Amino acid sequence: MYRTHNCGELSKSNIGDEVVLSGWVQKSRDLGGMTFIDLRDRYGITQLVFNMESLPELCEQARKLGREYVIRAVGTVLERSNKNLKISTGDIEVDVKQLQVLSSSELPPFTIEDESDGGDELRMKFRYLDLRRNPLQRNLHLRHKMAQEIRKYLDEQGFLEIETPYLIKSTPEGARDFVVPSRMNKGQFYALPQSPQTFKQLLMISGYDKYFQLVKCFRDEDLRADRQPEFTQIDCEMSFVEQEDVLNMFEGMIRHLLDKMRNVKIGNDFPRISYDEALRDYGTDKPDLRFSMKIREISRLVKGKGFMVFDKADYIGGIKVESCASYSRKQLDRLTDFVTQPQVGAKGLVYLKINEDGSYKSSVDKFFKEEDFRQWKDEFDAVEGDLLLILAGGKDESLFALSELRLEMGSRLGLRSNNEFKPLWVLDFPLLEWDGENNRYSAMHHPFTSARAEDLEFIESDPGKLRANAYDLVINGVEIGGGSIRIHDMKEQKQMFRNLGFSDEQAESQFGFLMEAFKYGAPPHGGIALGFDRLVALFGGSESIRDYIAFPKNNSGRDVMINSPSSISDKQLQELSVKLDIKDK
Amino acid sequence: MYRTHNCGELSKSNIGDEVVLSGWVQKSRDLGGMTFIDLRDRYGITQLVFNMESLPELCEQARKLGREYVIRAVGTVLERSNKNLKISTGDIEVDVKQLQVLSSSELPPFTIEDESDGGDELRMKFRYLDLRRNPLQRNLHLRHKMAQEIRKYLDEQGFLEIETPYLIKSTPEGARDFVVPSRMNKGQFYALPQSPQTFKQLLMISGYDKYFQLVKCFRDEDLRADRQPEFTQIDCEMSFVEQEDVLNMFEGMIRHLLDKMRNVKIGNDFPRISYDEALRDYGTDKPDLRFSMKIREISRLVKGKGFMVFDKADYIGGIKVESCASYSRKQLDRLTDFVTQPQVGAKGLVYLKINEDGSYKSSVDKFFKEEDFRQWKDEFDAVEGDLLLILAGGKDESLFALSELRLEMGSRLGLRSNNEFKPLWVLDFPLLEWDGENNRYSAMHHPFTSARAEDLEFIESDPGKLRANAYDLVINGVEIGGGSIRIHDMKEQKQMFRNLGFSDEQAESQFGFLMEAFKYGAPPHGGIALGFDRLVALFGGSESIRDYIAFPKNNSGRDVMINSPSSISDKQLQELSVKLDIKDK
Repeated sequence: MYRTHNCGELSKSNIGDEVVLSGWVQKSRDLGGMTFIDLRDRYGITQLVFNMESLPELCEQARKLGREYVIRAVGTVLERSNKNLKISTGDIEVDVKQLQVLSSSELPPFTIEDESDGGDELRMKFRYLDLRRNPLQRNLHLRHKMAQEIRKYLDEQGFLEIETPYLIKSTPEGARDFVVPSRMNKGQFYALPQSPQTFKQLLMISGYDKYFQLVKCFRDEDLRADRQPEFTQIDCEMSFVEQEDVLNMFEGMIRHLLDKMRNVKIGNDFPRISYDEALRDYGTDKPDLRFSMKIREISRLVKGKGFMVFDKADYIGGIKVESCASYSRKQLDRLTDFVTQPQVGAKGLVYLKINEDGSYKSSVDKFFKEEDFRQWKDEFDAVEGDLLLILAGGKDESLFALSELRLEMGSRLGLRSNNEFKPLWVLDFPLLEWDGENNRYSAMHHPFTSARAEDLEFIESDPGKLRANAYDLVINGVEIGGGSIRIHDMKEQKQMFRNLGFSDEQAESQFGFLMEAFKYGAPPHGGIALGFDRLVALFGGSESIRDYIAFPKNNSGRDVMINSPSSISDKQLQELSVKLDIKDK
Repeated sequence: MYRTHNCGELSKSNIGDEVVLSGWVQKSRDLGGMTFIDLRDRYGITQLVFNMESLPELCEQARKLGREYVIRAVGTVLERSNKNLKISTGDIEVDVKQLQVLSSSELPPFTIEDESDGGDELRMKFRYLDLRRNPLQRNLHLRHKMAQEIRKYLDEQGFLEIETPYLIKSTPEGARDFVVPSRMNKGQFYALPQSPQTFKQLLMISGYDKYFQLVKCFRDEDLRADRQPEFTQIDCEMSFVEQEDVLNMFEGMIRHLLDKMRNVKIGNDFPRISYDEALRDYGTDKPDLRFSMKIREISRLVKGKGFMVFDKADYIGGIKVESCASYSRKQLDRLTDFVTQPQVGAKGLVYLKINEDGSYKSSVDKFFKEEDFRQWKDEFDAVEGDLLLILAGGKDESLFALSELRLEMGSRLGLRSNNEFKPLWVLDFPLLEWDGENNRYSAMHHPFTSARAEDLEFIESDPGKLRANAYDLVINGVEIGGGSIRIHDMKEQKQMFRNLGFSDEQAESQFGFLMEAFKYGAPPHGGIALGFDRLVALFGGSESIRDYIAFPKNNSGRDVMINSPSSISDKQLQELSVKLDIKDK
């Protein structure tokens, strides 16, 4: 038997017991007559003691153990004289009588500590060692618990977990598919699912009523930071529902998770704002509501006063930063640097300090009078001590830059705590967006999303005006996912494909089975898909998903630990009836 | 609002309530003044009533509804005069006041009833309609519930659900991989996992202690009946365990599932038999223990009596079929036909009837005396009225044919009830089997399985003699899965790869990362993988998995519903740097 207890389990109540423990050597200390070893496993750390006086040979053996050796120790639980209040087993230690080395260890290439000395690349190559570190163990434990709680919630709400296939059909619409050559059907390919969208709609047509799945999805995209070619989705669909039903169901889920995982009760604090409102007030469709600092447009107030930058701009707007009128020249210069960096893209920054003494100080003092500044102050509901930061330019660009500036100020002022959670719904998205490159509309969510009934009058005349029955879930400025009420009528779906520039033949060859299915009694239905990796990271207090995935890939889509992708044999290629076609090598 | 209740929910307590229901028209009946519609959803069926006298227009409208129309009805719950005891809502009906057609339906290509009139192929093409049928709804509901219970059990036992990657590395050992060309790493391929074997071992090395996952696995094999190219595995691994620990943990899981799903308590009835014993007594390593009918070898008794078939045979053995001495000539001929069919492969069948009057009747009467038959009778512990069925030939072939005959007799005698469950462990498998074709040993389980300590003396001299620390879980004659205690020592693993004919370079290039990981403190570990599709089918009372999978593929690996695999565009091929290489077209 390798152990009677794990390394996080023994307490005062075990004093006097003979126990067997197994685990990894975290560290050892020689104190003359005694050697102490911290023995580690997933559950905790227990101190082992070896006594030079009573068992000199054993103690010598213990002194030779290196870090990360795997050992088995038999001994007696004693009360510790120096208690360690930081660990659950800190009241006791184990006086070892027998020791067995189960595996030795070479010196690891980096330290297995909360803060490791290993660089990113090294830790990815030795991911199995990185995964030993406490922060990663905590992350994966959180992920496990969240997966169980999500399933529990959905099961209790009557959802059925139904597995959809991984070897499906390639559809050129949307992102790029990963494909899989078929050996038995030569020249043909499966595709890995970008999402189980059509299958979950078919399950609704099949009468399953409420479906869910935690499912891997795949997108062969050029990887931006923090995107993975394979990712996990909480995928759900419901029948006989309207938008309101879906929103309530998943508000409930987020509320349940925040309660269970973080002990955060959000009550009814789950705002719903429209896409237009989100852009107007926060400059983005994924606003961070942990702090207010709403954007105000002031074009009306500031134009025609002789300041050319404003006079020529389509849009002038800004934010009020409370109690920051005392910012120094240097601090304001840094903010100018921030907004003018290429990723933010503003041309410059106008500020107005509303000093404590009632005076004003602005970078555009010479163009505006005190009376003007008083108007600005009123517009922003500002008080003495506040700072206004103003950007001007094209509307979209200015709103984007203001959004970035707002987040930056939120961070600087400590208004974006990882322990606070502000979920919201963004609603009333446009159904279609104009794709200038291909000179046609494309679906903002996807081609199965229905239009709001009251907008249907525009379907022929001005499709750009149609709003979608679609919703995004945003938490702390992170888009966790979204969904929509789907089209469930074949004619409406066909019209939508035409709006999106599909020929009837294309629509038929790619989604014929879905439109065929609509012929046999399709219920009204809708659903949602949430990014599980991102949700876990957010709950863990991080915006980066990589450390919440056991074996992630790097930005070139490589797993550097197993060295994949890699070449395959000629025999494999022949069996699959494909050959390599590499020109520039 | 589409509904206040579902179609399986209303009872006497709702009488007088105004309700809204939505669902599918299962069938309708016109009885002169009244029209009745059975409205169906996942939860049940509710009877709707339309009254010709009070609401003639509505009633006319109802009469026009076809099967599988999706409707919404508003009405009042009434007590039924003719109660239907077969359905949960049989006490009530809904007197409809308002009716809305949500979707019409064409006539389905087959009937949506428990027994459909549609052929296999048609039902696969319209799988979304087949999935509406009750038996399939029950199967997928069972699958959902089993998935939840399995996770619940493992979670409670301290297992962590950890997702392993789907885009991994191709390894020529074992079955054929499905591969995925990498666009970003030209000429290189990912492979889809045949199982997460190496990743779960790495997770043990990472200290996760207990891991599980319900995970899709992929094998590009020529599909036999009831094999799917993608299938779901319950994949588990544990650290610091011996074989006994793994067996106890998963006995517990099966016991839990049988209790929760089928209300079957098996107590301690969970036998463990060795591979040798299984072959000797049942002719197979996956015995069906719902009935005894053990095979006995009688070579010693019957040789040298002048019956050439026996005298020349390597093996003579048989089974005792209780109370079947009265079998007719015709019945016995049919059994001879059964054993001599090519799939069973015996040369002929010898019988001995032990008649109720104490006399004997045998197909080999002329070679044996009554005294001989008395010996046979004693050997089988037979009594008057029993029938002995004897086969002779090569040992392996005879045992196989006896195994088939035993199962056939079990079925004929009604000893193999779908409501009885007899799980067992088969242990002490050989570690290696000789691969005559490639003139080397291959791993019977897989190359990571450890040998039993007491057999290690044979590792150089006679590797074929090594027994594995491996175990198979068998229920009702179906192999549900298996596992082993793994090698956790780099040197031992290297030796194993050499035994299996790997060069050190091959071992390094394919499993280098695992052997590298062994250098840094690998705990002793072992695990198991169970076929989830098969386990669900078995619990559902079927040996066929197809109807327990929402969207299965056919025997050519095709999904005939979505028509996949299919060709992809030249642009996709170019981006992936591959081209088709089809010679015979």
